[in-house]
This record gives sequence, structure tokens and C-alpha cells, in this order.
Amino acid sequence: MILRELAARLGCTLRGDGDVDVRRVRAIDDAGPGDLTFVSSPRYVPRLAATRASAVIVTPALETPLPSLLAANPYLAFARAVALLHPQPPAPAGVHPSAVVDPTAELGEGVHVGPLAVIGPRARVGARSVIHPHVVIYPEAQVGEDCLLYSGVQIRERCRLGHRVIVQNGAVIGGDGFGFAKDEEGRYEKILQVGTVVVEDDVEIGALTAVDRAALGETRIGRGTKIDNLVQIGHSVTIGRDSVLAGQVGIAGSARLGDRVTLAGQVGVVGHISIGDGAVVTAQSGIPGPVEPGGLVSGSPAIDNRTWLKATAVFAKLPALQKRVRELERRLEELTRK
Amino acid sequence: MILRELAARLGCTLRGDGDVDVRRVRAIDDAGPGDLTFVSSPRYVPRLAATRASAVIVTPALETPLPSLLAANPYLAFARAVALLHPQPPAPAGVHPSAVVDPTAELGEGVHVGPLAVIGPRARVGARSVIHPHVVIYPEAQVGEDCLLYSGVQIRERCRLGHRVIVQNGAVIGGDGFGFAKDEEGRYEKILQVGTVVVEDDVEIGALTAVDRAALGETRIGRGTKIDNLVQIGHSVTIGRDSVLAGQVGIAGSARLGDRVTLAGQVGVVGHISIGDGAVVTAQSGIPGPVEPGGLVSGSPAIDNRTWLKATAVFAKLPALQKRVRELERRLEELTRK
Amino acid sequence: MILRELAARLGCTLRGDGDVDVRRVRAIDDAGPGDLTFVSSPRYVPRLAATRASAVIVTPALETPLPSLLAANPYLAFARAVALLHPQPPAPAGVHPSAVVDPTAELGEGVHVGPLAVIGPRARVGARSVIHPHVVIYPEAQVGEDCLLYSGVQIRERCRLGHRVIVQNGAVIGGDGFGFAKDEEGRYEKILQVGTVVVEDDVEIGALTAVDRAALGETRIGRGTKIDNLVQIGHSVTIGRDSVLAGQVGIAGSARLGDRVTLAGQVGVVGHISIGDGAVVTAQSGIPGPVEPGGLVSGSPAIDNRTWLKATAVFAKLPALQKRVRELERRLEELTRK
Repeated sequence: MILRELAARLGCTLRGDGDVDVRRVRAIDDAGPGDLTFVSSPRYVPRLAATRASAVIVTPALETPLPSLLAANPYLAFARAVALLHPQPPAPAGVHPSAVVDPTAELGEGVHVGPLAVIGPRARVGARSVIHPHVVIYPEAQVGEDCLLYSGVQIRERCRLGHRVIVQNGAVIGGDGFGFAKDEEGRYEKILQVGTVVVEDDVEIGALTAVDRAALGETRIGRGTKIDNLVQIGHSVTIGRDSVLAGQVGIAGSARLGDRVTLAGQVGVVGHISIGDGAVVTAQSGIPGPVEPGGLVSGSPAIDNRTWLKATAVFAKLPALQKRVRELERRLEELTRK
Repeated sequence: MILRELAARLGCTLRGDGDVDVRRVRAIDDAGPGDLTFVSSPRYVPRLAATRASAVIVTPALETPLPSLLAANPYLAFARAVALLHPQPPAPAGVHPSAVVDPTAELGEGVHVGPLAVIGPRARVGARSVIHPHVVIYPEAQVGEDCLLYSGVQIRERCRLGHRVIVQNGAVIGGDGFGFAKDEEGRYEKILQVGTVVVEDDVEIGALTAVDRAALGETRIGRGTKIDNLVQIGHSVTIGRDSVLAGQVGIAGSARLGDRVTLAGQVGVVGHISIGDGAVVTAQSGIPGPVEPGGLVSGSPAIDNRTWLKATAVFAKLPALQKRVRELERRLEELTRK
Repeated sequence: MILRELAARLGCTLRGDGDVDVRRVRAIDDAGPGDLTFVSSPRYVPRLAATRASAVIVTPALETPLPSLLAANPYLAFARAVALLHPQPPAPAGVHPSAVVDPTAELGEGVHVGPLAVIGPRARVGARSVIHPHVVIYPEAQVGEDCLLYSGVQIRERCRLGHRVIVQNGAVIGGDGFGFAKDEEGRYEKILQVGTVVVEDDVEIGALTAVDRAALGETRIGRGTKIDNLVQIGHSVTIGRDSVLAGQVGIAGSARLGDRVTLAGQVGVVGHISIGDGAVVTAQSGIPGPVEPGGLVSGSPAIDNRTWLKATAVFAKLPALQKRVRELERRLEELTRK
């Protein structure tokens, strides 16, 4: 595609030669002739001088002799350029003969079902959704339109996915919540998990992530929320819209996350608490109680991020601090003795 | 079911109208006419006034005008009420024609094998066990009676599950332990993991949990122990009876856990140590050494829970404490100079 | 096998009766007649007196009346003895009739493909590789020679595995990296992950581990590196040779690990940083920035290990330290008042 056409389709201003042909997007250090690259962070600006890319996406303020697409948000323009220059082959409509689709299941128009997938009784898959090999959709589960379920995904009974939901390989939606009651002899008796999971539109769920079904009622993932790999979502958890959960996060039962919440990698959240809209939790933190909307917290147990930053700085000096206190005690002792 | 009958079947005392009809169990805020709800924690008592449930399970001491089932342990009665009011459809006996069952495998009476499951040579599945689609049972593995294996579960060669074991989707029982020996050139050489895994009766294992086989001997999960999702159990680990491991816990090789041990979410346990009966480890803690029976420990590295609670409270004030020490030094310096 | 023959095949010196017959390897406490055991750590030396093993692998310096194989590195000799005495049954060449192998896929000589495996268009599997039931190899993926892929493994499109790679059950190689750009309204727009994953020779990847494909370019796991279960490797991560990642480690996007790096269990590594050759990170640590080659770091955020050990020792005494500071203030106040 020539750069001029790409500019038009991305809504970017063109600077320099619009006839240059770009065929793919590559990182600034790897790019060569025919490649489009991008600079979305100041730290990559110095590398622009050395890149062999044919063109670059930059902010209007950034000067470069390279043919350029000017964008207020180069990262977003980059995302869209990848989609334009690397179109994914569409999955053909149809059901592979080796798939086991129950006669009572309903498949919308244009649905693709790959080899050895299983779609159970009364399950529904919306139009144009793509079901890869070895996906299992349990009885009465529902998958919306234009969804993409990668191989090894398990959608348990009665769970519901909205439209344009993407689920990466091996994720489990609707496994039993972890609920047991102690009996008279101290043994754990299973509480049947008869609730469900609702995944709203435009959610993406990472590989090998588990979203547990509710004991009663539902576990809910809000519209546009993105969840990374190996994340654990306990039963009856509610997550708002446009939130982001990074890899290996764990959320215990009945916790409520608001909209636009960000949890960095390996964060743990205790059950039955709320995290307010727009709150951010840094990596490996443990959330023992409610977090205010807009809060920025860190540590295990988590505290205000600024306090935590200062406290961790002192932490490394604790042996010295202890020594200073001992010295103070000694000197004061001397002073008092005199 | 009318409340009187439910009372009889649960062994609860009835208070109020026994003819009220209840059809399902719902949480106190979601319940409506025809629903049974429960109050097992004081924090839900205030909500009892507003619930639209037709009946409620409470302790005898709790006053309410609602038709009630009185139970010393309302949570246990709730668990049993769910089982009575939400009976799960039984899986019909028989092997789906698409399943691949080796002719030398032995299936007990009433076993259900779903579509595309694989049961290898000389494997055995006990009476009435239910094997969902896409389960793989490797050669010579054994599954006891009345077990329930959800789709995507992998049971590796020669591993043995007891009776009434439940394994949630995607869990892996008997993957190779992580064992390597450094060779003369500093490269890692694999140690074949020729041991096995034994899962005793009444154990539940969560989705996407991995229980590694031993290098030699066995990894063992004791009777009645419940394991949540995404948990890692290293090779040759031994876990006692009625223990509980929450989500994303990791236990390194050859660690030994006693009976009734509780590990909260994301806890890590180092290898080759023992955790005594009844010990409790709070979330995200790291266990670097043995824990006494009945111990309650926290932190990474974990220490006594009370000490940890006090120390974390001081942690947040470390910058202030450092300042106070600096001030003390300054004043003492002044004092000495005079 | 008689001990003399085993000594010859392992390159060990024989001490004592070379005609003793050993049939399997067992741990020192479990071993009985016919078993070979080993002592690789001083802590097991006292148990040698009580073992019922027929023979033992020890260092030349260790005195024992048992028939012995003398090895400078008994652990390595043990690893090799297991391989000799517990040979694994070879998987017969051939494709199970229930497997779905695309006619354009290329399978090398002697390849074994188990029941219900799926091998997509233009995928390649090298000679003698063993593909267990329910493995999915996506279009254009490549698997080298002598590889072993356990059931439930997913190899995504265009990813490449070298020779002698072992992948444990349920691992996902090449799931989409976690990449999104915020659009004009604060919603996340997916960045297509058009890169790939390259796994070099002799790597082992644990059960339920996820290695994400790069957005552009590749994610790379270096030769001989061993990765445990439930590990998360973000997109564009590069790992060098002979490194070891223990269970539940998480590595964020674009981090670079050198050769012979060791990450203990549950470690988290932030994106876009480097960890130098030979560095060691202790369990549950969080790496917020670069680590020097040969570094030994601990804590979250991680600091030098010695400093951390001392600081954690003081941490438990923080309440006492705070009290001592308060007492100093009180006494100094008194002193100044006089």
C-alpha cells in the first residue's frame, strides 16, 4: 500500500513522499526497506536516525527526514496500521466434519467450527463467530456474534459471552467457584455452583485464565475489559468496563472492580471488597480492603503508592537505621551517666 | 418443594409457614418470591429486612418474620439446600462414539464418557464416574468411582485418583516434575520423572491447576483436601487431609503439608519443608521454612501473623521514623556540643 | 542390570560387589532390595545407615559398606541411572486414524501422532517427534526433530520449536501478546499480534505455561532453558541459554534475560528491562529494573540479597524499634527540660 493511501485510511496527515510503498509494520530496530515503523515514546526518538524503515508514524512535533504519517496518538495509529497491513485470513464458514455439534445447538450465519470442537445441547453461537479446534462449549452456553475462541477454550454450561469477545487458548470460563461449607466433623462439603458467568461485549480473555462461575447469581466481566494470561477470577466477582488485568492477577470471590481499573501483574485482591473507578494497583501488590476511585496503591498489604515508594526506600536502610538507634541509646546512656 | 419438606430433609427446625413453596436458592439481595435465602454472617442481618425471599435459613437466635429454617450452621444448611433444590442432571451411562477408548481400558458400570475423550491402554475408570469431552486419561492411569472430570483435564500415565474426586477443566495431574541435573558443561540434563501422583478420596482440584508427578515415589493429595484454580504442586509434595489451598498457590518439590492446613491465595511454599496440622498462611505469604502445627503466619518471608501485622503498620511510617531518628541525632549532637 | 555394567555405562567407579542386581532407582528412605539409591546432599548421609537399598551412588569420599557407584557428581549420575533403569516405552511411528492432519502438513520420518491431535495446513513436524492426543498445531507452525508434546499443548500459527523440545500438558505457545492502544474515548483497541515465538533446541516448557507471541518480531526462548509450570512469558521477551524459570514466574513484555539466569518461584519481572547472565532472583521477588550479570537479588521491589536478608530481619523488630525511638525522644525531652 502506498503511504498516501495508508494516511487516508488511518486519518493521518502525510509528510514527505506519499508514493513510497509500505508492506508491513516492524519495530524501529528491525525495520528495513518496505517497512513502516513508529515512535510512540521519547526513548525511541534517538533510534529514528538509524532506522532503515521506509516510513514512520510520529507526532506532528517530531522532525524526521523520513516519509511520515503524523498522528496525535502514534501508538493508536500504529495499532490500526498493523490491522491494515497485516490482514488476518478469514476463517471460512462451515463446520468441520470431525466436530461434534449437538443437533439442538444453534449456529448463526457464517460461523466457523474447527476440527474436533464440541458444541453441546441447546448451546448458541452467534453469526460469524470462529470456534477453533478443540474448543468445548457446554450445554446452554451462549457465544455472541463475531467472537473468536482459540483452541482449548472451555465454556461451561449456561455461561454467556457477548459480541466480539476474544478468548485465547486454554482459558476456562465458568469452572466451579471455590465454595465449601465445613460439616459437623470439620470436613469440607461442596456448595454446588449453580450460578453463571457473563462476559460482556469486546472483552478479551488471555490464555489459561480461569473465570469461575458464581455459586448463585453471576460473575460478570464488563464491556471492553482486557484480561491477560493465567489470571484467576473468583466466583461472583464483578468487573466494570474498560478495565485491564495483567498476567497472573488473582481476584477472590465477590470482589467488585469499577470501570477503567488497572491491576498490574501478579496483583492479588481479597474477596468482598470494592476497587473504585480508575484505580491503579502496581505489580505484586496485595489488596486487603477497599480502594478509592482514582487511587494508586502498592505493596502487600497495599498502601498509598507515594508512601510505599518512600517506605521501600527506607526498608533497604533498616539495618543502618537500627544501628543508628542503638548508637543514640548508647550516647544518651553516657550523657545521663555523667 | 414446600418449606416443611425441606426442613425435614435438611434436619432443620421450621419456624413460621411450612407450606410456602421454595424453588431455588438465591443471595439475599437477589432473592424474590419462591426463593430461599440464608444469613450466615452478621453483616447480612441488616439486609434481611429488605429481602423479597419467601424463606430464609438462619440461626435459631436470629429473629425474623420470614418463614425460616433454623440451623446451628446456616452456611452448611445452605450448601445442602442448594443440592436439594438445584439437582444436577445426571450424565447418562455410555461412551460417546467419538471418544477413543483403548480396548484394554476398563470402564466400571454406569460410566459416562463424553465426545472426543481419550482413555488409554490399561487405564481404569470406576463405576458411575463421569468423563467430560476432551479429557485425556493416559495409559495405566486409574480413576475411582463417582468421580467427575471436566473437559480438558489431563490425567497422566499411572496416576491414581480415589473415589468422588472432582477435577475442574484443564487441570493437569501428573505432568513431569521440574527436575534437572547440571552436567559437566553447566547444561541441564532432564531427570526422568518416573514416579506418580496419588489423589485420595473426596479431593477437588481446580481449573488449570498442575499437580506434578514425583521423580521417584509419589506426590500425594490427602483425603478431602480442596485445591483452587491455577495452583502449582511440585513433585513429591505430600498434602494431608481436609486442607485448603486457594488460587495461585505454589508449593515447591518435596514440601509436606499436614491435615487441615489453609493456604490463602498466591502463597508460595519452598521445597523440602513441613507445615504442621491446622496451620494457616495468609495471602501472598512466602514460607521459607517449617511452620508449627496451628501456626498463623504472614509476609514474605513469613513470620508470626501478629508480629507481621504490627510490623506492616510501622512499615508505612518508616519515612517518618527515619526523620525522627535524624532529628534525635541532631538534638543529641547539639546537646553534646554545649 | 548388574552394578558392574551400570558402572561402565555411567562412567562411574565401582566399589564393592559388582554382581548385585539393580532394577530401579528409589529415594533413600523408600528403597529396598533390588533398588539403587543415591546421596547427593550431606543431609541424606545419616540416612544411608538405615537404607535397605542394594546399592548407592555416592561421592568417592563418602564411606559406606553398601555396593557403590562413585561419581564426582552423584546427582548427575543419578539422573543418568534413572534413564538407564527406567527406559520409557517408545511411541510407535504413525498417525492415529482419529487425528486430523491437514494434507499440506509435513510429517518427518517416524513421527507419532496420537488420537484426536490436530495438525494444521503447512505445519511441519520433524523426524521422530511424538505428538500426544489432543495436541493442536496451528497452520504453518514448526516442530523440530525428537520433540515430545504432551496432550493439550497448543502451538499457535507460525511458531517454531527446535529439536528435542519437550512441552508438558496444556502449555500454550504463541497465544496473542497483551497489547492494546487506548482510542480517543479511552477504550482499548487490540493491536494484532503478528509476530511469533521461537523456542530453541533442548528447551523444556512446563504444564499450563503460556509463552506469548510478539506483536512484531519474535519472542525467543534460548537453547537448553527450562521453564516450569504456570509461567507467563510476555510478548517479545528474550531468554538466553540454560536459564531456569521456576513455577508461576511472570515476565512482562520485552524483558531480556541473559544466559544461565535463575528465577525462583513466583518471581515477577517488569517489562523492557535486562537481567544479566548468571543472575539469580529468589522466590516471590519483583524485579523493577535491570539486574547486573551475576547479581543475587531478593524482595519486592528487589534489592541486593544480603541487604534484603538483613532488612527483613529488622522488619520483624519494627514495632520494637519504633518503641525505642519513642523512648529516646522521651528521655531526650526530659534531659532538655532539666
